[in-house]
Amino acid sequence: MKEFDLISRYFSNGGYKRRDVVIGIGDDCAVTNVPENQQLAVTTDTLVAGVHFLDSAPAKSVAYKTVAVNLSDLAAMGAEPAWISLSLSLPEVNEDWLAEFVEGLYELTQYYSVQLIGGDTVKGPMAMTITAQGFIPPGSELTRSGANPGDWVYVTGTLGDAGVGLDILQNKLTVEGEARDVLVNRHYYPTPRVAVGTAIRRIATSCIDLSDGLISDLGHVLEASGCGANIHVDRLPLSRAMTSAVDTKTAIEYALSAGDDYELLFTVSEEQRGILETSLASTNVKATCIGQLSGHTEKLSLFKGDKPYEAATENGYEHSF
Amino acid sequence: MKEFDLISRYFSNGGYKRRDVVIGIGDDCAVTNVPENQQLAVTTDTLVAGVHFLDSAPAKSVAYKTVAVNLSDLAAMGAEPAWISLSLSLPEVNEDWLAEFVEGLYELTQYYSVQLIGGDTVKGPMAMTITAQGFIPPGSELTRSGANPGDWVYVTGTLGDAGVGLDILQNKLTVEGEARDVLVNRHYYPTPRVAVGTAIRRIATSCIDLSDGLISDLGHVLEASGCGANIHVDRLPLSRAMTSAVDTKTAIEYALSAGDDYELLFTVSEEQRGILETSLASTNVKATCIGQLSGHTEKLSLFKGDKPYEAATENGYEHSF
Repeated sequence: MKEFDLISRYFSNGGYKRRDVVIGIGDDCAVTNVPENQQLAVTTDTLVAGVHFLDSAPAKSVAYKTVAVNLSDLAAMGAEPAWISLSLSLPEVNEDWLAEFVEGLYELTQYYSVQLIGGDTVKGPMAMTITAQGFIPPGSELTRSGANPGDWVYVTGTLGDAGVGLDILQNKLTVEGEARDVLVNRHYYPTPRVAVGTAIRRIATSCIDLSDGLISDLGHVLEASGCGANIHVDRLPLSRAMTSAVDTKTAIEYALSAGDDYELLFTVSEEQRGILETSLASTNVKATCIGQLSGHTEKLSLFKGDKPYEAATENGYEHSF
Repeated sequence: MKEFDLISRYFSNGGYKRRDVVIGIGDDCAVTNVPENQQLAVTTDTLVAGVHFLDSAPAKSVAYKTVAVNLSDLAAMGAEPAWISLSLSLPEVNEDWLAEFVEGLYELTQYYSVQLIGGDTVKGPMAMTITAQGFIPPGSELTRSGANPGDWVYVTGTLGDAGVGLDILQNKLTVEGEARDVLVNRHYYPTPRVAVGTAIRRIATSCIDLSDGLISDLGHVLEASGCGANIHVDRLPLSRAMTSAVDTKTAIEYALSAGDDYELLFTVSEEQRGILETSLASTNVKATCIGQLSGHTEKLSLFKGDKPYEAATENGYEHSF
């Protein structure tokens, strides 16, 4: 089967339509308009079957994850998402799988008002690459390097759920009932924190999304900003599903080290905390203060109550099962 | 090995630097500035080892091809290239291979003044996806759909060389001496016709790049524009290496059906032919008129002299070895 036949049958529609797309799918390039006085934010993420998602993952979940991890990067930069390009490598043409994948893709792009503007479909091992683009007003991008000692450290949502969900799916943990569904769905269908990303522009001093785990990703901020951090593990936001599924010590380990939560971690100065609370209220997403940045050590110190806490694992998630 | 370690070691430099890149490699997104009064052109192409390039291909060739096929799509749209994002999937970390790949990548990006602004590096089967971006003044994009009956059909350079080069590498053909090197290099190191693409803006009525072969790609233009075409196979531009390597009949078949030449095919009205010649002169790239568009049939008719010519293969290149 020729690659363009496959493309034209499943992706020619492109889903959600935006007025800033001059030419969408079907020519050598897409052509778009960037609004005046906006910078372009660009990110690329690849998911490989058996490495970034389970071979048994539903097609809809694969579509969700591929889009969500990229929108999450835009969110972490404070960008408003606009367009995605998709490269899809598949070993064979499975019509049911493709139909479900496209449904998941269009569901998420519709929700976030994002248009699929192009891509490529090739025969090869199952893998997806998306390049996502969005807009940021000049000077309001949220980098990893803007944090300062004394800034407060926040995370959105709850941490560790996706990691527990993955372990349930791999039969490393047995959880039943509603908690199981919640945790597995957090693994299969991550939520990019797009509204938070734009809400905290010019308020947060730094931001990153949690793809590799709190310890690992906070480490990137500390390194880029030249700060240390004191984090209180008893303040880590845990879901009810998580605490009903595992004991507190285990829950903390997941929250510290498991990846794929796609929550945002950001820092804010003491002076901006009030404005932050107001701004976040509009997003309906809970953010929790988990600690504070310290001097220029790049060292992460964990505390439980007043006592130092030692994490079981030093590193974040390795993206391999 | 963690993915970001690999990225930071080999790609953190980013090669050629552009002033319109606000944030390059190293944060959650790149941030760039699109010039005022320019539209953005975006294209994505994936190459899979064993499908789009030989497993034995030199790393430098793989880098060249991955960049070139994307810049070729920008050229076919009339866009001036600006930035690329690279997703690299590798089964293992081979330092020699990576060093050579990066060298090839930076050589080509330097030549075309393109900056690598981001990407992803993952463990998986060997495959590369690039999303390339460039600029086009509003209204001057070269689509596949703008051709009209009576327009003349041009192609740049010479056709079929890359296909012969591939067959030489696969021991399907024996060619020796300088011709062998020329043909193999045309397969390994395609030249994206960037200068031609921008030179024929507002002059050509349609344009496409020849990735799947003349018959197949011209077919896309005929379909999109609702035209037929009469093509004279004795006008197809053939390289000296090609004609020294195979007989004329075989050469014509390669020129009609072999893929991966990455020459441009474009159409121009009778009135614009003079302006076209002047405009092309500045690019130092030869373009050859190979026929003319006919009425609204979407049918491609081949001629040799005055007589109809039947191609041995109906379809273009299938991108599989």
